[in-house]
Parts: sequence; C-alpha cells; structure tokens
Amino acid sequence: MEQITVVGAGSWGTALAIVLADNGHRVKLWGHRPELINEINSTRRNEKYLPGIDLPENIVGYSDFEESLKDVKTVILAVPTKAIREVLKDIIKVIKERVTFVHVSKGIEPDTLLRISEIIEEEVPSQLLRDIVVLSGPSHAEEVSQRHITTVTSSSKNMKAAEYIQDLFINQNFRVYTNPDIIGVEIGGALKNIIALAAGITDGLGYGDNAKAALITRGLAEIARLGSKMGGNPLTFSGLTGIGDLIVTCTSVHSRNWRAGNLLGKGHNLDEVLENMGMVVEGVRTTKAAYQLAQKYHVKMPITEALYEVLFNGKSPKEAVDSLMARVKTHEMEDLVNIMENR
Amino acid sequence: MEQITVVGAGSWGTALAIVLADNGHRVKLWGHRPELINEINSTRRNEKYLPGIDLPENIVGYSDFEESLKDVKTVILAVPTKAIREVLKDIIKVIKERVTFVHVSKGIEPDTLLRISEIIEEEVPSQLLRDIVVLSGPSHAEEVSQRHITTVTSSSKNMKAAEYIQDLFINQNFRVYTNPDIIGVEIGGALKNIIALAAGITDGLGYGDNAKAALITRGLAEIARLGSKMGGNPLTFSGLTGIGDLIVTCTSVHSRNWRAGNLLGKGHNLDEVLENMGMVVEGVRTTKAAYQLAQKYHVKMPITEALYEVLFNGKSPKEAVDSLMARVKTHEMEDLVNIMENR
Repeated sequence: MEQITVVGAGSWGTALAIVLADNGHRVKLWGHRPELINEINSTRRNEKYLPGIDLPENIVGYSDFEESLKDVKTVILAVPTKAIREVLKDIIKVIKERVTFVHVSKGIEPDTLLRISEIIEEEVPSQLLRDIVVLSGPSHAEEVSQRHITTVTSSSKNMKAAEYIQDLFINQNFRVYTNPDIIGVEIGGALKNIIALAAGITDGLGYGDNAKAALITRGLAEIARLGSKMGGNPLTFSGLTGIGDLIVTCTSVHSRNWRAGNLLGKGHNLDEVLENMGMVVEGVRTTKAAYQLAQKYHVKMPITEALYEVLFNGKSPKEAVDSLMARVKTHEMEDLVNIMENR
Repeated sequence: MEQITVVGAGSWGTALAIVLADNGHRVKLWGHRPELINEINSTRRNEKYLPGIDLPENIVGYSDFEESLKDVKTVILAVPTKAIREVLKDIIKVIKERVTFVHVSKGIEPDTLLRISEIIEEEVPSQLLRDIVVLSGPSHAEEVSQRHITTVTSSSKNMKAAEYIQDLFINQNFRVYTNPDIIGVEIGGALKNIIALAAGITDGLGYGDNAKAALITRGLAEIARLGSKMGGNPLTFSGLTGIGDLIVTCTSVHSRNWRAGNLLGKGHNLDEVLENMGMVVEGVRTTKAAYQLAQKYHVKMPITEALYEVLFNGKSPKEAVDSLMARVKTHEMEDLVNIMENR
C-alpha cells in the first residue's frame, strides 16, 4: 500500500484515483477549486466530472497544494497539456525529494513541439526527478469509474519505473501492459484526438460509417508516418495506445474530441463549440502542434492539414472533407510502405 | 461502357450493381428468386435488401442464369461463401469464353481452408478463366446505395486486372484503390467478421467501449499474425481491407456479424440468432475455418478460439470474454513483434 497524489480532479484524475483506491492505496486528490474538493470530501462524489459514482473512502480531496504533496513519492499528473508547465513549476516549489511523475494527458505543446515527458524533463530539476512514466490507452474515464474492463499501457525510458506503475494500477478490471516506446505511446495518444475531431466532423456532415472507417485508417497511417519519423516504433501505432485509443476516441459517445468535431460538422463555429463543451478539447491545440511537426519533419499529414484549415483558417468543414476524400492516389500501400521505410 | 453480370441480388450485389450503373455500364443482376427479380424489373426496387433505394434503369434483373451470363466478360460474384462453389459449377456450364471473376464475399471455406480466389481457381477451368479479382474494404451496402463516400481495394495477382476492375467501379463516391496482396486482402476481409461477432458479444454483455477497443486491437494483431504466416503482407492489415473494414464491422449498426454477436451476448442461442437475422452471418463459418487455420499454421488466436468455444461447444459468452480479458501477458509488444518476425 502506497501513498499517491493525483494532481487534477477532473474526470480522468478522479477515475484513476478510484483505481488506485480500489487497489488499497491512500490517494490524495488535488483540485484547484475548493468547492469541488469540499464536495468530494463531504459527499464522496464528483458530480460534475463523474456523475453518480461513489468515491472510495481512501481518496481524500485537497485544495492545498503543499499539503497534498507532502512526503509523496509518486505523482499522477492529470491536468490538460496546457496547464502542465504551470503545475510542474508549483510542484517543484513544494517537493523535497525525488518523485516519479506519471502523466496521463494526451497532447503536444504547440511551438516548442515537445511531448509531455519532455516538458517534465525540462521543468523538473534532476535532484527532484526520479522517473517519468506515461499511462495511456483506450480508456474513457466514465467506464473506468464504473469498473468496466479497460486496458492501458505504462511506458517509460526506464522499464523498472513502467513496471512499478503497472503494479500500482493493475487489477481485475484495469489491465496494464508495458511498452518501452515512450515516444510512440505519447505521439499516438496525442494525435488520435486530431483524427477524432475529423471523424466527428464527417459524422456531423452525415457522411456515414464507410467514410469514417476510411478516415480512421488514413489517420492511423498519418500518425504512424509522423511518429516513426520522430523515433517511435511503428508497431506501437498498431497497439492499444495507437489503433486502440484511436478507435475508442473516434467511435464512442464519451469522446469530447469527437463531440466537438460533430458540432463543427453540424455548422457551429469553433468558439461556440468550445464554450458548449465545458471541458478541454485537447485536439484543437494538438492540431496546431501536429501541423507544425509535419512541416518540421517533412511528413505529409493530409487530415491534420485539412483540420488545421478548418480550425484556424475558416475553411468550411464540408470543403475540407471533400478535398480529403478526393485526393488522387490509387495505390493504398504507398502510405504504409512509407511508414516502414521511415523506421 | 461495358456489359457486366452481377451474380447475387442481395444487398451487396445490388449496391455494386448501382455503382456500375451510375458509371454508365449495362448491368445484368441475377438472383435465384423470380419474385425478387420481378420486383426489381417492375418497381425498380429491391425492398428486402435495400429498402427505399431506386435502382437505375440500366440494371436489368434476370432469374434465368444462362441469359444473364450471355456474352459477358466480367462477372461479379456476390453470393455467400457457402454458395460460391455451386454457383461456379453452374456458371461454367453456360459461359463460352474466358471471364474475369470479381468476388466480393468475405469468408474462408471450412475444412478445405481455401480463400475464395482459390476456390475459383479450383472450380473454373483455365480455358474459361481470364483473371480473379477481389473487391474488399469498409463498405456497408446501405451506404453505398445512398452514394455515401466509400473506399475499397481492388486486388489481384495480375495488377492489370485489378486496375481494370478499379476503372469499372471508380467514381466520385466510390473510391477504389489497388493492392497486389490478394492473400492479405482476402484474409483481412474474412477474419474481421470473427472479431465483429466477438465485439458484438462484449457489447451485448454490456462491457463498454474501452473493452471493445482492446478487443479490436487484439483482434487485428491476431488476424495479422495468421495472415502474414499465410503469405499476406503485414502492411495490408493496417489498410482499408484490414483495420478499416474491421472498424466499420465492429462499430456500425449496419453490421450483421456485430448484430449477431450482440444477440449472443444478450443470452440468445446461436440457432435463434441465425433465424432472427434472416441473412447470412459469414463470421460463424469463418470462425470454424480460422480455428482450423490457427491449428494448421501453429498461430495463437485467442479471440477466434474463445469464439469457437461459444459457437460450437456451448461455452457461455461471459465466461469466454472474461477468460480472454484475463490472459496473462504484460508486454503488449509481444504480439506485434511476432507479426513482424513472421514476415
């Protein structure tokens, strides 16, 4: 039994706190809004983010940052990509010893083009940093909190650290595998949100399941093309954090990115959509980052580029999807052969 | 403009006849039930299989086999795998010259373990056989008949033949790519029905989207493992006829195999389910064939094996899924590395 701090009391942070609590660990769940923390501690519920779910007694909510991080060896970072740096700056002010950071966010930082593990390396001085692990896979928080069977991947440069995190989380419902390819795991997790936005758009436009399947297939090829050029193992994109997460995000009603895309496809503009969602839609910022990465690495990413035009240059969703589908290419293996040649 | 015969007036045969007719070809659509053919010719509808869809005038229904095949150079075989041999025996009695056979069925023959192109090779004497082409991909007939954007792959040992069929079918909505790997295309198309049945079972049991995504990911690995051992190109399984078709079949409400699995998961027995469907559920026979293939090629196929136990040995769906999910394996790359090593 360990003491673990989860930073971020949104749906995913709370769901992971439940998994850890189910495994008998003592969990400090930090959130920045005192009302939410009060609700968690007094009603054992987090109604906004996980409606109807009772929280185990061994989860204790904290709004005091220093208190929540006292004597902790493992910190789960469950905040949006955008907030990671700020949170890390706060954490290193209060921790005294080396910590293992587990991040569970799915994004790439625009402009710096860093993966989240790289941001952690940049922000946390080595005397406070034990290991960095990413936990990723097809895992809607709602279902995890309901103890539905879920599979995820624990990945780190240090396999001992990946296995340590695997041990903390694994149970009968929450099955954790390890994969040493942290680059592939982070890229797959981040970029699937772009394809989910695009899939939501095609659904919103009423294009049907055949078109969506083609888009997801092409999307996977585009992710693998960039990811392998960045040093990821092409096989990772065929695994849980690649195709697995891509499928669930593109086809499940729980997916925020799909829902946002769906509203865009139905004719709402981006500002309306983001307001309507009330939660962070990671795919929007990731589209910008991936667009920049495609240019940096000279990789063709037609879906990312089309979505970039829709989100940031006012192109109509229908025009963007139609030009995607009309791309001249007759030999489908081209894309895939490119991936392998980039290994 | 060509004259083409489509053998089989079910939903897929009729939808493909529409595509060909849209492209200006004269299409003879053969069906074995005279009432259905009368309906097609008199009402321009095939209400049982494609409700609400008007058939173009250049589709003519035939119930006379000899008449439908007169002077034809290209035959589209749109009959269930089970009926292929019988239909071929009838065809070769009436054709006089060499024909290109395009098959659009997705199955493997149990016991002989032959792919459909191999059955065609076996049944059609060389003086009547020009080429064999398979057309496959994520393509629900309903959506094709509604002119929704759809992408498919045309594959043959002879790329000229694959390109000829591509030319016949391609239009703005129906986008046809080529792939020389006929083994991979046929295996991917056939085996995805097994995973769709299993995905339907997990949905019927109420296991949620996270579990289904894990199952589909593992399913793809299992298909690629067998398919590459049989001589398919591992990359084909990441393309339209692999992951693309797998996604649409596992997640679309149009999918018969998914629907059959869903009923099994809800507690109905196999006979009830098959009666209830009213159409052929290819995945049931394919499960038997794939189970035999796994033994022949010494390939681990846990999903196929679990489904085989449910379909043919009376194992309860819940027990089968639970034991699948509980499999001991901590390193997710194992499966994928095996695929690559089998190339």
